[in-house]
Amino acid sequence: MSELLVSGGRVLRPDLTVERADVLVDQDSGDVAAVGEPGALSGDDELDASEGLVVPGLVNAHTHVAMTLLRGYADDKPLDAWLQEDIWPVEAELTPKDVRAGAELGLVEMIKSGTTALSDMYFHVDEIAGAVEQAGLRAVLGHTAVTVGKDEADAREDVQQSLDVAERLDGAADGRIRTTFQPHSLTTVGEELLREFVPAANDAGRPIHLHANETSDEVGPIVDEHGKRPLEYADDLGVLGPDTWIAHGVHVDEREIELLADTDTGVAHCPASNMKLASGMAPVQELLDAGVTVGLGTDGAASNNDLSMFDEMRDAAMIGKLAAEDASAMAAASVVEIATAGGAELLGFDSGRIEAGANADLAVVDLDQPHLTPAHDLVSHLVYAASGSDVRHTVCDGTVLMRDRDVKPFDEATVVERADEHATALVGRATE
Amino acid sequence: MSELLVSGGRVLRPDLTVERADVLVDQDSGDVAAVGEPGALSGDDELDASEGLVVPGLVNAHTHVAMTLLRGYADDKPLDAWLQEDIWPVEAELTPKDVRAGAELGLVEMIKSGTTALSDMYFHVDEIAGAVEQAGLRAVLGHTAVTVGKDEADAREDVQQSLDVAERLDGAADGRIRTTFQPHSLTTVGEELLREFVPAANDAGRPIHLHANETSDEVGPIVDEHGKRPLEYADDLGVLGPDTWIAHGVHVDEREIELLADTDTGVAHCPASNMKLASGMAPVQELLDAGVTVGLGTDGAASNNDLSMFDEMRDAAMIGKLAAEDASAMAAASVVEIATAGGAELLGFDSGRIEAGANADLAVVDLDQPHLTPAHDLVSHLVYAASGSDVRHTVCDGTVLMRDRDVKPFDEATVVERADEHATALVGRATE
Ligand SMILES: [Zn+2]
Ligand SMILES: [Zn+2]
Repeated sequence: MSELLVSGGRVLRPDLTVERADVLVDQDSGDVAAVGEPGALSGDDELDASEGLVVPGLVNAHTHVAMTLLRGYADDKPLDAWLQEDIWPVEAELTPKDVRAGAELGLVEMIKSGTTALSDMYFHVDEIAGAVEQAGLRAVLGHTAVTVGKDEADAREDVQQSLDVAERLDGAADGRIRTTFQPHSLTTVGEELLREFVPAANDAGRPIHLHANETSDEVGPIVDEHGKRPLEYADDLGVLGPDTWIAHGVHVDEREIELLADTDTGVAHCPASNMKLASGMAPVQELLDAGVTVGLGTDGAASNNDLSMFDEMRDAAMIGKLAAEDASAMAAASVVEIATAGGAELLGFDSGRIEAGANADLAVVDLDQPHLTPAHDLVSHLVYAASGSDVRHTVCDGTVLMRDRDVKPFDEATVVERADEHATALVGRATE
Repeated sequence: MSELLVSGGRVLRPDLTVERADVLVDQDSGDVAAVGEPGALSGDDELDASEGLVVPGLVNAHTHVAMTLLRGYADDKPLDAWLQEDIWPVEAELTPKDVRAGAELGLVEMIKSGTTALSDMYFHVDEIAGAVEQAGLRAVLGHTAVTVGKDEADAREDVQQSLDVAERLDGAADGRIRTTFQPHSLTTVGEELLREFVPAANDAGRPIHLHANETSDEVGPIVDEHGKRPLEYADDLGVLGPDTWIAHGVHVDEREIELLADTDTGVAHCPASNMKLASGMAPVQELLDAGVTVGLGTDGAASNNDLSMFDEMRDAAMIGKLAAEDASAMAAASVVEIATAGGAELLGFDSGRIEAGANADLAVVDLDQPHLTPAHDLVSHLVYAASGSDVRHTVCDGTVLMRDRDVKPFDEATVVERADEHATALVGRATE
């Protein structure tokens, strides 16, 4: 049995208090074996957390990790034009190798910024699964079905593929990979196919992850066509439930917030993407007050433009206060909660907290820095002052993925260089 | 004559295009001597910018640098309660040595995040000037007068001190320090004293820097008492003009925007502070469209909670789009513009751009990183993906203040430790 001691640090406990403690990790099971008094425990290997804050690995509840290839490719445009004029034409040219290169870049970025679990929506999912397996991270993956503009056979095949991929990849990478059925959104997949496949996914026990209520533009047409609000339509289709989470949930009315709470449907809040695309401000404090389970997601790098959950936490606090017109809304502790335990609950992982028996998914943030001085409130520092580059070590499933900023599962320079080459060639093909 | 060559990098030019170039710095004059083809120039000393983007040093147009001591001390509260219950009681205990310790911490943080000029409002200004002189940065300083709650003699003395300090410190640190007359705001300094001292400041040729139109709560009482909008009242007092800049300008109506443009009065936009205190969203794109000169400021660390202009740029883009309900508003180039040239124009420094003859104030951002890959758009990366810790070297007035993350004017560890001690003792005194 191999044990790792994360020693000498301050530890963020599940109740978000901070205490001096050592964390003993059982590397065989991948779980935390014990959290104890400094000096009382010992391991075969040691990770120095002195001058550090040991936090649960951050959970990115909604992303498109391979979209790092399009970071900065087309900025400062609204969602519809951005997708149709820039993103989709380039994505149509994506090869499996491109997706692998982009996914590896994104996963390296995540490891370097303390993220240990992600919920991804994309295609060429085998490549993403391969990258996740190599990275040593935990992920919920799926094939995203879009049926608009496709003939019936292609549309059906796409949705079928989403179910098939979910079936095939669930439990991969020693159980670190789980899956979801993924209709892209309520407007980009036709009603007939939703009525057929959502019950099939439910019967097969597959969780559902989709975009919903992201922009005001998508709400009107649903109301016009179906005579009800988007989440009422979703509920009618059988989409909502404790295993489902929607990404965004910006434009939700009171009835829809109740519906989310009543059906125990989760929300992956994506503040940076919502701001950058001017989609609006999700009522995230209201969602929490109503009892909705909320996670935090970066969305893809093309609408963010990074995958650091530290930036996302800052954004969540900032937009949460603006949306509520209340500076006490989305206080730092609430933000840390959605970025860790909330996300883990959505994704169905036993992580997002540091305690004996939980997954040993954690990050050590280097506190010994000017911008994290003085130490009045370390939870505040995580949200308002820290950045991804303050993460010194990252551990997932008991394995050290980064030690002293050195990423272990990949050769970082090679990943960066390869992604750069693929991105350049891809844009060349798409615009020639 | 001593010359420094910033070599091998890509350089952000005044028109915000990027080109491979070397930058030659005349260290005696503190100016850029030439920007030339790679390899064509040579200097006595060299700063390696290969793999880097050479950008103008960032200009923090509104801050309270010594407030780093209160970073994270009282979060998640609205402006009024936060000032009256938390900040002012602690500030009442601040000694000159506390201010020096906090200022040094903030200046180290600025150097480490590529900021080379700041506009500060505070008290015990000699200590701040001493810290700025040692830091090698450029600053506009002043003593901030607050007269509410003071008897007439004390109130008068405070405002007189603001004028005296401006007179005494202007031109200090070999001209790197300039000064402003600083009534704290239109509501915290009485009308009678404003009517007396604003013309006196104008006659003495002192620029004016004050908070204005920050929250909706401060607008109503001014309208009630004076029968006009805050900036109309300010104009009536003689406050507005080409040498004045207001901090915030969140709640400004169309008439006030016109007034700012017509009088050539500047605005220091502080998006993070406005979000964190839920003050609202400044119409920053409208201000630019109207021709107002806009700079970008972090405000104090207690309402941000860091002094990185990279976070501030990201926030400015994000809130700018939300405020305009338009994803094309506050595009990356506009944001970089206000963070560099815009701020320099407000502060009256010949910096904020890299070209022969301008101040040699610059920073080198390390591009060779996963989160700044691929290189589709480097201006986008500065705003949306980079963070302060990506800055590798910082140069101000021709002097290298940070080389390979090593801060030269201060011993960083000593500054951090001392600030921590002062912060702990300060809060202890204030809450005992
Ligand atoms: Zn998405
Ligand atoms: Zn201020």
